[in-house]
Amino acid sequence: MDIKGFQFSAVEAAIKKPGRKDLALIYSEVPATACAVFTTNAVKAAPVLLSRQRISSGCARVLIVNSGNANACTGEQGMLAATETSRLVAEGFGIAEETVQVASTGVIGVQMPMERVRDGIPTAINALATGTLAEVAEAIMTTDTFPKMAVRRVAAGTTEYTIAGIAKGAGMIMPNMATMLSFIVTDAAVDGPFLQQTFREAINNSFNIISVDGDTSTNDTCLIMANGMAKNPLILPGTPEAAAFVQSLQDVLLSLAQQIVKDGEGATKFVEIRVTGAATDPEAKLAAMAIANSSLVKTAFFGQDANWGRIFAAVGYSGATVDQTRLSLSFDDVVMAKNGIFAGNDAEARGTEVLKKKEFTVRVDLGVGCGTATVFTSDLSHEYVTINADYRT
Amino acid sequence: MDIKGFQFSAVEAAIKKPGRKDLALIYSEVPATACAVFTTNAVKAAPVLLSRQRISSGCARVLIVNSGNANACTGEQGMLAATETSRLVAEGFGIAEETVQVASTGVIGVQMPMERVRDGIPTAINALATGTLAEVAEAIMTTDTFPKMAVRRVAAGTTEYTIAGIAKGAGMIMPNMATMLSFIVTDAAVDGPFLQQTFREAINNSFNIISVDGDTSTNDTCLIMANGMAKNPLILPGTPEAAAFVQSLQDVLLSLAQQIVKDGEGATKFVEIRVTGAATDPEAKLAAMAIANSSLVKTAFFGQDANWGRIFAAVGYSGATVDQTRLSLSFDDVVMAKNGIFAGNDAEARGTEVLKKKEFTVRVDLGVGCGTATVFTSDLSHEYVTINADYRT
Repeated sequence: MDIKGFQFSAVEAAIKKPGRKDLALIYSEVPATACAVFTTNAVKAAPVLLSRQRISSGCARVLIVNSGNANACTGEQGMLAATETSRLVAEGFGIAEETVQVASTGVIGVQMPMERVRDGIPTAINALATGTLAEVAEAIMTTDTFPKMAVRRVAAGTTEYTIAGIAKGAGMIMPNMATMLSFIVTDAAVDGPFLQQTFREAINNSFNIISVDGDTSTNDTCLIMANGMAKNPLILPGTPEAAAFVQSLQDVLLSLAQQIVKDGEGATKFVEIRVTGAATDPEAKLAAMAIANSSLVKTAFFGQDANWGRIFAAVGYSGATVDQTRLSLSFDDVVMAKNGIFAGNDAEARGTEVLKKKEFTVRVDLGVGCGTATVFTSDLSHEYVTINADYRT
Repeated sequence: MDIKGFQFSAVEAAIKKPGRKDLALIYSEVPATACAVFTTNAVKAAPVLLSRQRISSGCARVLIVNSGNANACTGEQGMLAATETSRLVAEGFGIAEETVQVASTGVIGVQMPMERVRDGIPTAINALATGTLAEVAEAIMTTDTFPKMAVRRVAAGTTEYTIAGIAKGAGMIMPNMATMLSFIVTDAAVDGPFLQQTFREAINNSFNIISVDGDTSTNDTCLIMANGMAKNPLILPGTPEAAAFVQSLQDVLLSLAQQIVKDGEGATKFVEIRVTGAATDPEAKLAAMAIANSSLVKTAFFGQDANWGRIFAAVGYSGATVDQTRLSLSFDDVVMAKNGIFAGNDAEARGTEVLKKKEFTVRVDLGVGCGTATVFTSDLSHEYVTINADYRT
């Protein structure tokens, strides 16, 4: 995969377990137009505080990211660690410190092992000649079971450009935190303000339909860098080229978001929740998120139990306008309940068959308006409890 | 235990599993002053719709309650079932139908087996001569592992009165639904409007500090009946007698609420969360509830992992005003973190010891104001997943 003007590397710096790559670089040979979205959590990791301030310039050259340590709840010493890391990277490349982005994921509350970071940075810079984005995707994994990556190639006049993204997952994803990181690189030339707006919208239609607003970790970071090395005509808003870019970026982010759900901690099911007939789109999303976040619904999915009553109950407390005599629900194409009541015993048997599948769709119609929303979720399994009970050990 | 003028019974009506009592009565020999608080879920069970309308009179004589079937999402047939149930009870006692309260808990979406209810009602009425409130507490259990009951005797001038309550638990309690029922009986003579106000306040300081507002099931019901048979002078607001009544009612409800947490599905820990130093009391409660509801925090409790970083992260997204450089956290008396950073490795070992206990307190100080709140929660265990994956089978 060729993303013009970008270099990648990932090395073992012994921040995490031995034998695992845990320090990685994404480097653009020229300054890139960049923007980022960070956690809304009031408790922010040191690298988030540092990177957020710098990205306001709209420009970045290099990202350094580590797994194994979140550098969160680490106070002034943590800020010094993040700042020193960025200084060493800047010196290594001979570039301005302000163009270095820093990201971290891992355990909260433990100081960064800076001697290892200091050793790791030159090694990582040396490895750029041969590294790949896929290696970076692997180095940022924590409890993830597979690296997450998505790529689109887009024709643009006489040339073409690439949008490539990687991500790491976020615990059970839905309720609560657990860090989500995603880094997108493209060699397209894109107008800065347009990139910013497009990136935010694409996040809203991907990572934000698998994660509750506000329920974010101390370290969540989504960063995009566009370096223009594909030499396409600058993409400006309101053009056909803009539409193609928006669609392709959206595709990359949605693919990454869906991979995160599929790799939810202990997940055995991938469930699409489609709500229709809500009073408004936001109300449809409220209802869909209430279903997706219900521990009772998620354990029923794990148990392959067609317990549609729990889904109605979740819709009922979601805050969406509900008339319980107009609620309908299907698992894939099997109607389980209509006008608020059970569709009959035949539905029970057929619905149970649907829930035995690894992937299925839950459709809920509220019957009160035209609002719609789709979100993605996983089930809540024994494995989730195991992973999170012993995360630090 | 003598609660003057009340009779109780619980019988097997085969609504639930064989060999389990599942139909119960609480009967007052005279009309009782009564009030109730019902679920705020937009999807309401038939008995809730019926009882809510009737209780507005401020009077009740008898409660009929069943487990094994929630009579929720059952449409018109469900309403007919609840109405017929109340009519049969009224006829059996020769009292006005409007003074009958109906409550149900169990599976959602299945029609009530009315032939069994019809058979069960006369049996239950006959059993009143010998029944006890403790039997009713047992009959309303679903996934509860022990019946929940609390009693206070209160001196009132030359006489004394009793406040007795029972409850059934509510799944993992914290996130989401799972029905909570609680019924309180007292032979005290209490002013109606005062009872209503006092009952609501006592619920706010008990059941509402173990359960998220709005995250309620289709069937949640808290009912109190005060029949005045203790012949105490009528308790009126602003008197010393009122203060004693308020305190005793609060004690009964808090005891029941704590029993519910201790019997949370699969719970192995009972955790008190005390937040201080918040900007306001409501913000303190926001922070405490975010901690109590975090699946990541709760699995760490189960794993006996002193992962205080997850608690800070939960506080960070709670919506409470947070300055991350002023956060402090203790497990019992072990300070884990101060001014946002780790207190050191000695704390780690000692904190882990605290988490090995069955009951402990998490203290979080936000350091920004004088707001305080206390809530109670349990851990999230493998057993929770098992119970809820297979609830209906």
